[in-house]
Amino acid sequence: MGYSDKKPLILVTNDDGVQSKGIKSLIEAVRPLGEVVVVAPDSARSGMSSALTVYVPLRISLLKKEEDLTVYACNGTPVDCVKLAINEILDRKPDLIVSGINHGSNAAICVVYSGTMGATLEGCIWGIPSIGVSLTDHDKDADFSEAQKYARMLAEKTLTEGLPEGVCLNVNVPDRTDIKGIKICTQTQGRWTAEFMKSQDALGKDVYWLTGVFENHNPDDENTDEWALANGYVSVVPCKIDLTAHQVLEQLKHWEI
Amino acid sequence: MGYSDKKPLILVTNDDGVQSKGIKSLIEAVRPLGEVVVVAPDSARSGMSSALTVYVPLRISLLKKEEDLTVYACNGTPVDCVKLAINEILDRKPDLIVSGINHGSNAAICVVYSGTMGATLEGCIWGIPSIGVSLTDHDKDADFSEAQKYARMLAEKTLTEGLPEGVCLNVNVPDRTDIKGIKICTQTQGRWTAEFMKSQDALGKDVYWLTGVFENHNPDDENTDEWALANGYVSVVPCKIDLTAHQVLEQLKHWEI
Repeated sequence: MGYSDKKPLILVTNDDGVQSKGIKSLIEAVRPLGEVVVVAPDSARSGMSSALTVYVPLRISLLKKEEDLTVYACNGTPVDCVKLAINEILDRKPDLIVSGINHGSNAAICVVYSGTMGATLEGCIWGIPSIGVSLTDHDKDADFSEAQKYARMLAEKTLTEGLPEGVCLNVNVPDRTDIKGIKICTQTQGRWTAEFMKSQDALGKDVYWLTGVFENHNPDDENTDEWALANGYVSVVPCKIDLTAHQVLEQLKHWEI
Repeated sequence: MGYSDKKPLILVTNDDGVQSKGIKSLIEAVRPLGEVVVVAPDSARSGMSSALTVYVPLRISLLKKEEDLTVYACNGTPVDCVKLAINEILDRKPDLIVSGINHGSNAAICVVYSGTMGATLEGCIWGIPSIGVSLTDHDKDADFSEAQKYARMLAEKTLTEGLPEGVCLNVNVPDRTDIKGIKICTQTQGRWTAEFMKSQDALGKDVYWLTGVFENHNPDDENTDEWALANGYVSVVPCKIDLTAHQVLEQLKHWEI
């Protein structure tokens, strides 16, 4: 594909779809930093986590080709997009992957369900410095200007510094204009509860729509991402792709099994 | 729903669907241990990770009700099944969640993409001791007898001992009859490569099917799950729901951002 060797290659993706305001804001934010290739879902794929498409074939459509900006849409999940980009579309490994800007928070346990973070973790699996960026506002017309500023700053910093092997960043930006700065955080412990709205379809059959209330298990812990967001900071949580609970390995070895 | 207070309540789910041989084998394996409620996808949902269903309503169908065994199917993902079970179906918190037995390995990085493990991590998020069990054989008629034995043993042990807060188990059973025992392992570092088979549809348009080859980054490390499986052991990896890379927090705090 003949990308220039001089500029960093930046892969952009998301889970709200290629037409969302969030990804357009992100492209605008990182475009000055290098050559940008976008491979993103053709429509919204929220809550896709690290899901893969295995039962239907994937298709890639070229939507735009300008100097230093190429945009593709794909009928798969965010992780499919990253895999297609690396395996089939790009002629070299990206220097950076940025996913987002998500419409809505991906702090706390949402990291597990998030397609934005699924794509980010996938970049990390490939050994590419990867950042997921989310704004705590679900509105399709949300104001991304502050999030853009932080996305660009963190993208630039990550291009310069790199990230430790096996670690990517989960960045959440509070929906306010008086942001106090960035805080390096831990993932808030907690879970979603009261997760379904029950209603009926036109035939009177019960149906369930996913909803819920987040229950914070350590609301006073100033090291957590939820605390940072509630107190006006951008939260940055370094996330691992190795799920091993190393600290309990010895304990389990004492099970008589 | 009037479950007995005397027997442990065991929730069974999977990602290959409620009709698969793997889940039937698992039900048979754990049925002697308590009251079993199955809530599983109505068809195969492989590679669903921790995906949620947000754009269509979920439906639950009762398939079977016998003494100490109730079976429901759901049109959602494995995580949806666990959420529906806990929020809408069960009248008390399960004492144990067992997911599987998956047709195919979920060792190494597959833990990130696996619907079997998505359901298991979801149980863990709810503070319920949870185990995902997989057999390294994709065949729909695979022989699950050895996997059943280990699933039951580990389910029984987990009911007795519990699991540390925020930790669940990723159990993989090698497809052989001369299994040497159980090894407590770490997640093998590595990634899938060469991930797509390119072909054409009937109109001559390019399509991509997910496939791939696993690239093991530490093949000689005897502590890993891939090593255990290759050497005749059942691998048990304790997995965390906290993705925070705690060891790099201090390093990142030195970034000037």
